[in-house]
This record gives sequence, structure tokens and C-alpha cells, in this order.
Amino acid sequence: MALSATPPTLSPAYLTDRYELTMLSSWVTEGTVEDRAVFECFGRRLPEGRRYGMVAGLGRLLPMIEDFRFGEDDVTWLEEQGVVNAAGADYLRGFRFTGDVDAYREGDLYFPGSPVLTVSGTLGECVVLETLALSVLNHDSAVASAAARMVDAAGGRPLIEMGSRRAHEQAAVAAARAAYLAGFSSTSNLAAGRLHGVPTVGTAAHAFTLAHATEAEAFRSQVEAQGAGTTLLVDTYDIAQGIRTAVEVAGPGLGAVRIDSGDLAEESARARALLDELGATSTRVTVTSDLDEFVITALGDAPIDGYGVGTRLVTGSGHPTAGLVYKLVAVGDGPDPDAPLRPVAKKSASKASVGGRKTVWREHDADGLLRSEHYAADGRAVPEGASAVQVPVVRGGEVVHRPDLADVRRHAAASLASLPAAARRVTAGPAYLEATPVTH
Amino acid sequence: MALSATPPTLSPAYLTDRYELTMLSSWVTEGTVEDRAVFECFGRRLPEGRRYGMVAGLGRLLPMIEDFRFGEDDVTWLEEQGVVNAAGADYLRGFRFTGDVDAYREGDLYFPGSPVLTVSGTLGECVVLETLALSVLNHDSAVASAAARMVDAAGGRPLIEMGSRRAHEQAAVAAARAAYLAGFSSTSNLAAGRLHGVPTVGTAAHAFTLAHATEAEAFRSQVEAQGAGTTLLVDTYDIAQGIRTAVEVAGPGLGAVRIDSGDLAEESARARALLDELGATSTRVTVTSDLDEFVITALGDAPIDGYGVGTRLVTGSGHPTAGLVYKLVAVGDGPDPDAPLRPVAKKSASKASVGGRKTVWREHDADGLLRSEHYAADGRAVPEGASAVQVPVVRGGEVVHRPDLADVRRHAAASLASLPAAARRVTAGPAYLEATPVTH
Repeated sequence: MALSATPPTLSPAYLTDRYELTMLSSWVTEGTVEDRAVFECFGRRLPEGRRYGMVAGLGRLLPMIEDFRFGEDDVTWLEEQGVVNAAGADYLRGFRFTGDVDAYREGDLYFPGSPVLTVSGTLGECVVLETLALSVLNHDSAVASAAARMVDAAGGRPLIEMGSRRAHEQAAVAAARAAYLAGFSSTSNLAAGRLHGVPTVGTAAHAFTLAHATEAEAFRSQVEAQGAGTTLLVDTYDIAQGIRTAVEVAGPGLGAVRIDSGDLAEESARARALLDELGATSTRVTVTSDLDEFVITALGDAPIDGYGVGTRLVTGSGHPTAGLVYKLVAVGDGPDPDAPLRPVAKKSASKASVGGRKTVWREHDADGLLRSEHYAADGRAVPEGASAVQVPVVRGGEVVHRPDLADVRRHAAASLASLPAAARRVTAGPAYLEATPVTH
Repeated sequence: MALSATPPTLSPAYLTDRYELTMLSSWVTEGTVEDRAVFECFGRRLPEGRRYGMVAGLGRLLPMIEDFRFGEDDVTWLEEQGVVNAAGADYLRGFRFTGDVDAYREGDLYFPGSPVLTVSGTLGECVVLETLALSVLNHDSAVASAAARMVDAAGGRPLIEMGSRRAHEQAAVAAARAAYLAGFSSTSNLAAGRLHGVPTVGTAAHAFTLAHATEAEAFRSQVEAQGAGTTLLVDTYDIAQGIRTAVEVAGPGLGAVRIDSGDLAEESARARALLDELGATSTRVTVTSDLDEFVITALGDAPIDGYGVGTRLVTGSGHPTAGLVYKLVAVGDGPDPDAPLRPVAKKSASKASVGGRKTVWREHDADGLLRSEHYAADGRAVPEGASAVQVPVVRGGEVVHRPDLADVRRHAAASLASLPAAARRVTAGPAYLEATPVTH
């Protein structure tokens, strides 16, 4: 593949807030940088009105943890900028993450208090992962959480992710991946196809029709290139005329028509009737244009065979970031990995946290429906009969969890299926449950 | 700098919707791919309640247009995937953009109908830039537009961008750049410092205090590493006690205290009074925690010396994408660059566009305040006495516009200063003006 210097490729270690490195530098200076520590990533609450969240991003994050290194000129720059002192610089020269990470699997659900990622290691190696871990998980989980709701609303009809143009050019690739793992069928984004194996689709824009002298010429050209199974965009001028022309050009075996404007319930019903009248009874009707889980729900009775979702998907349908935070929960008094850790917690107003490294488990009812999520910070194992939620994903700095995206998709579908119908409604409501501490 | 394969570096040509290449492939097949074309990028409206938008992203986009090439194995993959046919693949092998681009400068204002980017060239080379151009401009302009409002609300007090953890890890870097060009003082993001020269800042998180046995120990360690001019985070336990400890440790020459929780108006007033009482009269009070232009406006009378803004900045303060579209507006009947172009426009419901390549100009009053923005699609020059808005940025495929970020910042400040006070209010209101067609 063509390598490019644009954007210049920095180590993922740069995708970091300055204060992570100033803290690290202080710890190096005071001799505590190798003290044991545990950080947890969790959300204090779900975005307003959301009943559940879906975890995504782990598959992108883990390789970046392995690649989190500082080159010689990185270190020189950081020292020149006064980010780290000489001792801090020396520490960074040899840096690699050597700790452990446990996490909720991609495609799993999360709720307020769910510890979706637990990072254990030395103070220094854990603290520097904060910004990167949150960037990846907050973005990808926001998109997956919105996508999961749209998948539910679509009730089995296929969804195409097509929001690249409404997102940062690299975020678009991650958004396509997150939507796919949450149950979307495909994406318009070629990079997501090449990098992540997401199926790509797309036929033509209005510009294609406009660039031809007539709509019929445009359709002929497209059918010649892509076959009659293609999707023709029929709303550049007049939808009914567009459909007549489409079937005239492609024949009744035309794959699909796409409508990208107007009242989609009305236009799809008219389109279906007209296609049937023209004998194109198996030609599908797909719609695009400002769709989200609410509009898709409202279109539930319309004769629509597929949806393309753009803006609202890549912007998390009103909640473009998942609100996960990364907090120190336990710290040792030295580098001995077997010494007991001291739980720590912030007490500041409205941002209190729960100290101690947590074990998490879930309980399901006889029908397999999720009923509760609990954690304990006393080192206990997952109770008998309950399900563990976290899985080991990094051990001694090596990634030990590399599911393929098809597995993640299956896990996402199973996770959604473990929610009762009420928890899957797209209307605003409270979180279906909260991860609650068990102390007895 | 340390090169990294994560994320794998694809050509920017991949950051593209599949249909751009299927259209191109059809045009290659039908022999029209070299026909002349003009595309324009504009917004039909501003995000709800916004009085103006600020353009950003051009400085990132232009180098990617130069790098928009397809390597041999890119082309092989695209052909294997059925995205392009053999003729389309041949076309892509030699592809580079050879056309012209004219654009609104970064830091300039835009309004409904403003043609912020005009791309002229062949059909093929213009169409394939759509997704990338929109991704970059929509993201960066959304952030700059929100940032400009916050800068105005802060009334000269410095603003720190610190939202990296709430954005995709690469979008975070672009967001830091966009905020800086719109008038923010600095960023927490190290990559933005390294790549774009944005000043970086940051001292310590709550984890730093929590990891020490006492708050005093944490402060001593930080002051030792960073000097008494540092900013101490005083709200891990109790703010008043935190401030006393901070001044005790650092002395009255302490640079600043940061408060990240609670009622910021109340806490900042108490902090100021306490600092003054302790003789730390020049110690600054900085606040963070869910700030945006509305909260900053509400804090206008509080004794606050600086703001840190995260989530709401990187998510465009409620409008995470700028809503710009990229539309074919004129097309030739062949490859002759001097032959007249035919204006084209979509007629579909609610998405109509205005055909023809536009000349844009603005009129200012005697005080230098912006009064109107007009365009004409009849090939006329900018009228005498009016100001041109677009500048040439690419000629014959070569970037001819490379202002440094300091110049862009100055242009942004001048642009904001050209708006009357009413247009700069953060309350919801209509667009200050619309770019309107002139036909006489």
C-alpha cells in the first residue's frame, strides 16, 4: 500500500496529554515510578436517556499499547520542551508497557460504574496510557452505542454506514469499524474495508447524474459499469420519473433504487407501488438522508429494504463521546507485585470514585436475560453461577486477545439479545442497570 | 520521530467513500473522465442557533491533496474488490490531482451559502476529493466554530484545549490545532505540539495526588520537578485545605491553582479570597470541568484567570460536524479547459443547489464591520470596492498557499473583529448574514 507522510506518523505515545508525562517525570525523580498501580476506566453515568452502552475500540487500542514507545528524537523533543527532565527522558528511552490489561470485550454492554478496562502495572507505565485509552474507547464506544440502537430499530433490515464525510478522516475509519461490529452490514469507507475487512458498498452520487446530459444516460453508464444489480439514485430531479427511467434502463431486475430526500415514508411507499406496477417487484428501496434510530423507528412500517446512515451515526446520535474516565484506584508502596495495594479514591464534589481493584460479574435469569452486574474490590473471585465480564487482553505487555471482527459482531448481537425488550427501546430512559458494589 | 505502523498508514486516497471511485470508473469507461468540472463545498445552513461559522482544516487538507495517489497494491485491491474495472484501475495508477482549488482562508468566517472551497479540474480528479475534503473541513470547522465562540466568551482570558480524551485519538490532534487557530492559547495534546507547533501545557491529574501518601507530598514532588510557577490541582480532597497546603508548599509565588469540580463561580471566589489572605495575590485561579461558551459567559464575573475546555470543545459544543457538502456546480462537454461550462444543480426536495462557478465578495462598512456577502455565477470579477473572499490555494495540482498558524490565528482574530457585537453573542440566533446571489 502507498505509504504517506500525511498526516506525519507519530508514535501513538504522542497521542497523549502533556500532564501524563510531567507526572511520570516527577515519579521518576522521586523514585516511585516503579510502584505498583491499578487504573480503571469506567463511566460515572451513561449519556442522557441511554439505557445501555456498547464497548468498542479495544481491537484498535491494544496494538497501540504494544507500539507505545518513544524514539530518540521524541525524547529529545520532550526534554527540550520541558515536558520531562533528564531522568524522565532516560526513563522514556527504554519505555514499553510491561503490565496487564483486563477488559470488557468489544461488543459487550456497559452501564454506569462498569469497569470496562483495568490496567495494572507500574505507576509510570499505567499513567501514560490514560489519554490514548480514553480517546479510543470514548470515540468508538460512542459510535457503537448509537449503532446498536439503530440496528435494533431497523429490525433486521440492513444498515449501511456512510458518515465518513461528517467525521474527521481517521475517526471515520474507526466509526465504520465500530458500526460494523455493532451490527451494521457495510460501510462506504474504503479504508475500513482495507484495514478492518468491513464490507464496502456504494454506487453513485447526484453528481454522477448531473454530469450527464440526461438521467437516462447516467443510469445507462452506471448499469453498464456495475450491472443491473446496482442501486440507482433516483431523486436528482423527479423521483417518479427517475424510477421509470431506472427500470427502463436496467430492466425489472434492477437491484435497488435509493431515495435521499423528501418525506421518506411517503416517497418509499410511492416508490414501492411504482416499482411493483413496473414489474420490478424484487427491486429494493433504500433510503438515506438524516436517519437515526428515531427516524428508523418511525419508518418501521414503510416498505423500505435498507437504510444508509451518516451524520447521526458518526456523531454518536447526539452523544459523540462516551464519557469514560480513567482513574487510579489502587497503589502499592513499592515495586513488589505481590505486596498489598492501597485502595485510593477521589473525594471531590460530584466526581467521587470507588477505590480498589474490582472483580466484576453478571447474573442472568433462566431465559438468559441479563439481570444484574456487581463488583467487589476485596480481591474475591467471580462467584459461582455468575458470569465473569472482563477477559485478560494484555499480559506482561503482550496482547493476548485478538478476536476477529466476525467474533466481535457475534458477541455484540448476543449482548443485545441478553437485554429485555424494554431496555432496548430507543426512547429516553434510565440505565437498565448499574454496576453495584457488593461488600458482604 | 518514531514511525509507527499503528494505525497502518494508508494513502489519503483511501479516506474515501467507495462511490467516488465507482463513479470515476464509469466515467473512465464512457470516456468522460477528463471532462472539465467544478465542485463547490458549502453549507446550506449553519448549525441551529449559530450566527457564524469559522473555516478550519485547509492547512491539513492541502498536503493530503498533493499526496492523494494510489500505489500498485492499492489499485490491485480496489480492482479485486470490484470497486473499479480494469480501465478504472489503469486510470488510478497514474492518478494525481492536477487541477485548481480556491478557498476561504482558515480562520475566516462562513455563512449559509458561502462557497468555502471551489475545486476545478477534470470530473475524475474533482470527484475523488469529495469525502476527504468534507471530512477534514467538517471536523475542523466544527471545532473552530465552537472555539471562536468560547474565545469571545472568555473575553481575553486564556483558554486551554484539553479534550483529547473525549475525541478519536487523531481527531484530537486536529481539534487542538483548530482550537488554537481560533484563538485558544494552548493545548494538552503533545502531538499537536510536535506536528503543528501548538504550545502544550499540563501539570498533574488527581491520580498524582492520590498516588502520594498525602496531598502535601504530591505538591512538594510537583513543585520540585516543575518549580513554584506550576499549577497545583487543589480539589482532590478539600479545596480550601488544598489551597492552604499548596501555598505552604510552593510559597506565595505559586503560579496557579486549578479547580476541577463543584460550583466554579463559588469555588473560584473562595479560592481567590483565600489565596489573597495567604499572601498569594498573584497566584492565578484556573478552572476546568464541563466548560463551554455558555458556562464561560456565566462565569464572566468570577475571579478566574484561565479556563480549560475539553469535551464541549472537541465535540463542537453540540454541533460536532459543520454540515458542509460538496456539489458539482458546472461541467464541460469535453476536456478543453477554455470551453464554456454548463451550470448544473440538483432539484430534489430540500436539497436544491445553485449551479455555476461562483465569484464571492464581501462588503464592509466605514468601521470595517462586515455587512454582506454576495456571489455571482456569471464569471464576473469581484466588484470594485468589495473584498474578495476566496484565495488560490492549489494551482495545477501544486499547493500555493502555506500560511503559518500564527498568520491564521491573526486572520481568525481579525475575522471575529469584523462582526458586530450582536453577531458574536453566544445565545442562539439566526445566521448574521447569508451569502446571496447577485444576478444583475
